[in-house]
Amino acid sequence: MADQNTLNNLLATVREGAPGLFGKDFLLTWDHGTSTLKSVLAAAEVLEHAYQNGKDARYFDGGLAISIFRDKSTRTRFAYASAATLLGMSLQELDETKSQIAHGETVRETANMIAFCARAIGIRDDMFIHEGHRYMVEVAQALDEGKKEGVLPYRPTMVNLQCDMDHPTQAMADLLHLSKTYGGLDKLRGKRIAMTWAYSPSYGKPLSVPQGIITLMTRFGMDVALAHPEGYDLLPETIDIAKRHAKEAGGNFTVGHSMTDAFKDADIVYPKSWAPFKIMEERTRLLRGGDAKKLDALEKDCLANNAKFKSWECTDELMKHTKNGKALYMHCLPADITDVSCKEGEVSANVFERYRLDTYREAAHKPYIIAAMVLLSAAKDPSAFLANAIK
Amino acid sequence: MADQNTLNNLLATVREGAPGLFGKDFLLTWDHGTSTLKSVLAAAEVLEHAYQNGKDARYFDGGLAISIFRDKSTRTRFAYASAATLLGMSLQELDETKSQIAHGETVRETANMIAFCARAIGIRDDMFIHEGHRYMVEVAQALDEGKKEGVLPYRPTMVNLQCDMDHPTQAMADLLHLSKTYGGLDKLRGKRIAMTWAYSPSYGKPLSVPQGIITLMTRFGMDVALAHPEGYDLLPETIDIAKRHAKEAGGNFTVGHSMTDAFKDADIVYPKSWAPFKIMEERTRLLRGGDAKKLDALEKDCLANNAKFKSWECTDELMKHTKNGKALYMHCLPADITDVSCKEGEVSANVFERYRLDTYREAAHKPYIIAAMVLLSAAKDPSAFLANAIK
Amino acid sequence: MADQNTLNNLLATVREGAPGLFGKDFLLTWDHGTSTLKSVLAAAEVLEHAYQNGKDARYFDGGLAISIFRDKSTRTRFAYASAATLLGMSLQELDETKSQIAHGETVRETANMIAFCARAIGIRDDMFIHEGHRYMVEVAQALDEGKKEGVLPYRPTMVNLQCDMDHPTQAMADLLHLSKTYGGLDKLRGKRIAMTWAYSPSYGKPLSVPQGIITLMTRFGMDVALAHPEGYDLLPETIDIAKRHAKEAGGNFTVGHSMTDAFKDADIVYPKSWAPFKIMEERTRLLRGGDAKKLDALEKDCLANNAKFKSWECTDELMKHTKNGKALYMHCLPADITDVSCKEGEVSANVFERYRLDTYREAAHKPYIIAAMVLLSAAKDPSAFLANAIK
Repeated sequence: MADQNTLNNLLATVREGAPGLFGKDFLLTWDHGTSTLKSVLAAAEVLEHAYQNGKDARYFDGGLAISIFRDKSTRTRFAYASAATLLGMSLQELDETKSQIAHGETVRETANMIAFCARAIGIRDDMFIHEGHRYMVEVAQALDEGKKEGVLPYRPTMVNLQCDMDHPTQAMADLLHLSKTYGGLDKLRGKRIAMTWAYSPSYGKPLSVPQGIITLMTRFGMDVALAHPEGYDLLPETIDIAKRHAKEAGGNFTVGHSMTDAFKDADIVYPKSWAPFKIMEERTRLLRGGDAKKLDALEKDCLANNAKFKSWECTDELMKHTKNGKALYMHCLPADITDVSCKEGEVSANVFERYRLDTYREAAHKPYIIAAMVLLSAAKDPSAFLANAIK
Repeated sequence: MADQNTLNNLLATVREGAPGLFGKDFLLTWDHGTSTLKSVLAAAEVLEHAYQNGKDARYFDGGLAISIFRDKSTRTRFAYASAATLLGMSLQELDETKSQIAHGETVRETANMIAFCARAIGIRDDMFIHEGHRYMVEVAQALDEGKKEGVLPYRPTMVNLQCDMDHPTQAMADLLHLSKTYGGLDKLRGKRIAMTWAYSPSYGKPLSVPQGIITLMTRFGMDVALAHPEGYDLLPETIDIAKRHAKEAGGNFTVGHSMTDAFKDADIVYPKSWAPFKIMEERTRLLRGGDAKKLDALEKDCLANNAKFKSWECTDELMKHTKNGKALYMHCLPADITDVSCKEGEVSANVFERYRLDTYREAAHKPYIIAAMVLLSAAKDPSAFLANAIK
Repeated sequence: MADQNTLNNLLATVREGAPGLFGKDFLLTWDHGTSTLKSVLAAAEVLEHAYQNGKDARYFDGGLAISIFRDKSTRTRFAYASAATLLGMSLQELDETKSQIAHGETVRETANMIAFCARAIGIRDDMFIHEGHRYMVEVAQALDEGKKEGVLPYRPTMVNLQCDMDHPTQAMADLLHLSKTYGGLDKLRGKRIAMTWAYSPSYGKPLSVPQGIITLMTRFGMDVALAHPEGYDLLPETIDIAKRHAKEAGGNFTVGHSMTDAFKDADIVYPKSWAPFKIMEERTRLLRGGDAKKLDALEKDCLANNAKFKSWECTDELMKHTKNGKALYMHCLPADITDVSCKEGEVSANVFERYRLDTYREAAHKPYIIAAMVLLSAAKDPSAFLANAIK
């Protein structure tokens, strides 16, 4: 439970950075200034405090929080629902299979049709490379037009619940987890985080988590070591951003092809499977073309290639290379745990079990991160609202 | 934003007509007197004002707003969800695929089982001619019995979200759009509206929109010109009602078979595809019988017949025949737009784009229309409630 | 409508028994003391009174009420949604088909991931014998750990919405129905209730209703006569509990194989189909093994065996054997009604129609029973809260 002094500092941080998000969407962390990101983290902490202490933080008197999930989801779905109820909105999911969208409706039109009484729209669209973010931008532009032209009374806040480029609610929850673990964002400077690929028996996992981590953590002066087998590249654009951020923040960003090297002296490790972006591009093309035979062949090739890298598993042995052998293990969940959820996976049962509750705590921040993003976008003076809510 | 004088006039209109809806359902516009319809429109305007100005208009402290969608829906689904949150109800959808209804449960029983804590029930059942409205009446009677016999503490308000006969939330939103466009309901007297069939590459679209328009607009003294190719008749009952309404209101109602004639000097055009009701009857029979072969044949015949009328497209050329070449184009959306959502459709891209934002504004009224229907049915003195809400 | 004296007595009953449920789950009625059960019934009555009189009984300022339905459901689904809105929570269903659960996620993990902002979790898992209750216990333990380890700010209350052993929200609603019918729980002492098997054209219906009835009604000194054809045994454990409860409460519990004998002089009859638990065990094994052929054979055998007992139908003829020929007929609904929902079923149309509205009233208690379970688990002083709510 936070004391009053801590709360006052958090409210001051909200006050400082919140104007940067007022009236804006949260699609990519690199769309926003660092002080805005800090204000989101601070607001999330205050909202978490409010909920834990039974304080009513419903900013809205109703209104819809809309979600569009173009991929399966449990934890983000529930995190979004939680954020909605925290702020007093009613959740309404756009289930594209139950809608008339196939029947000639444009994105521009749908965006307006669902949004007459919406205050937030959260979208997950992470299946197709080069498309998820583009879709969100298309929705955002439609909402802008709708507001400008008097169709929509309010411009609902858009929140990216995972796209092909970034997974900002995850990366920001991860950052809050680190900040709370180490006692503040300033304590992260110089800390080494190994964001590495890891083996999984599945293929085609999104790239947005590693991309989100390398672009965000570099901003806070961390020493970010990305490592993956040859060919498992991320989107080049995000590599460039990570490099720039590292330079600007006086941190470090390296790309290597050895898990062991990345783990060396790491304070934090984040081993996670993903698909090579070139494969994702090919897959997107084949899916669009509906070529089932070639898709099968692609999957087979990929899995065969993946199988060459089964040694990319986060084991006790590997963990010994980290700082004092005690690096913090992170994962966005669900992890592919060897002998638990699969035969050979991203992490050994031993390592995972040791950090299991930490990964739960990491995930626990997401509802408040989402709520903070919406609140700071909707409220002119969110720190005053929060100060009043926790009184 | 409405000024106080306008708001007072709206509240007075609510006061006058609201008693006619108290304790009643909204299944067909012709079930209700004209002053009741006016009070629904006025209440919708006040609710819209309230929402736009951040006023809390939650009449209910919880309770369920139930929806039953027996056909796909985006905009009505979201409009209903919006109405629920505006009035403070929690939405709960009856998904018949997840229920035990197949397993021996009667309509009468289900209606009661879901309604113990319900304040509103909205139903879309527009697929089968002669059945949608009948089903709603069956539900309504079950609820009447449940209330009378002490099973239900409240009799939830039923709202027709589209049946085989009428689409009252659409038609009323359309009417509000016209009233706001022309500066009041009294300004509609004598205005010519062309409700015409239009070509679409699909078949089997419901008849409820044109039926809703001809029966409603005639009540306000409009000159309603219905036009469709030979054989694309509407339900005879609705034609009779439109005739009677036109006569009573001193308006005009004609049925013709030329789109050009209907457009001649029209102030408003509403070109939209629908299926001939005789075909819908046949289709209902075949669907009930499960005769897939005959259904395929019927669809093929229909589409072949439709294809003869591809010239029924709302083009710039055709629009020139309207009043000063500038009639207001209306559509319930989604429209089949030539070269946008299909190769050949109901409306040219040019015409649609010119009126696109108007059609969005037209749709924007629906949440408030639905909320007004529920409020006037549930509240003894809705104008007092509204006056207080917007203070 | 209850008078103030009645309400005061109810509040006193809540006060007395509520501490037994504070911080606990409601998974099986026999987990709880009799005074706790009485306090749940009393709180349900007060909540029913509050809702009927337009009193706001929202204990929570938001927060999620999560449901997990592993079997189809209408009435329990809506009862749970109703309870959520009564108490001020937002409903969020975990649809396992839309989640990533298949993809390597453990029950322990999912339970925490969905529960960060949850105040209640209701689960139906009644398909597999020996598994439903076990699953709920697994979820409960995960939530305990989550709360203890600082992952969850609140420990959400778990409510069993039907498992393989008990259907406590049904049995408690049934008990409230009896209490209100006869003027109090103490009036049930010595009353004879015939809980009997009945023929249905389907097979594989859960055993939880008869098990819930025999274990609960025996606690209140009733004369419980269980009857079923040879081989249609219930879980032995529940038979033992019923025997023990009857002994402790000075009531009676018999098991027989004649519907007529059970009906003899009965005050109440509850004829309902279920599957023999040995068959359910076999079915569970085969389903787990995915042996479709053997499953088909099992179903055929079962249905053939069922067909020998078509005479187990609740008819007017049979009702004549009951006390003055006027026993109260009960059913959890939907019933298989001869000539209504099937050719030959559990009950004749005549008998069912005579008691139809009674069965509706029986079902009407369920939302309040569920709400009472959650309230008494979450609130330190629920009687004070309720007293204030109905002021």
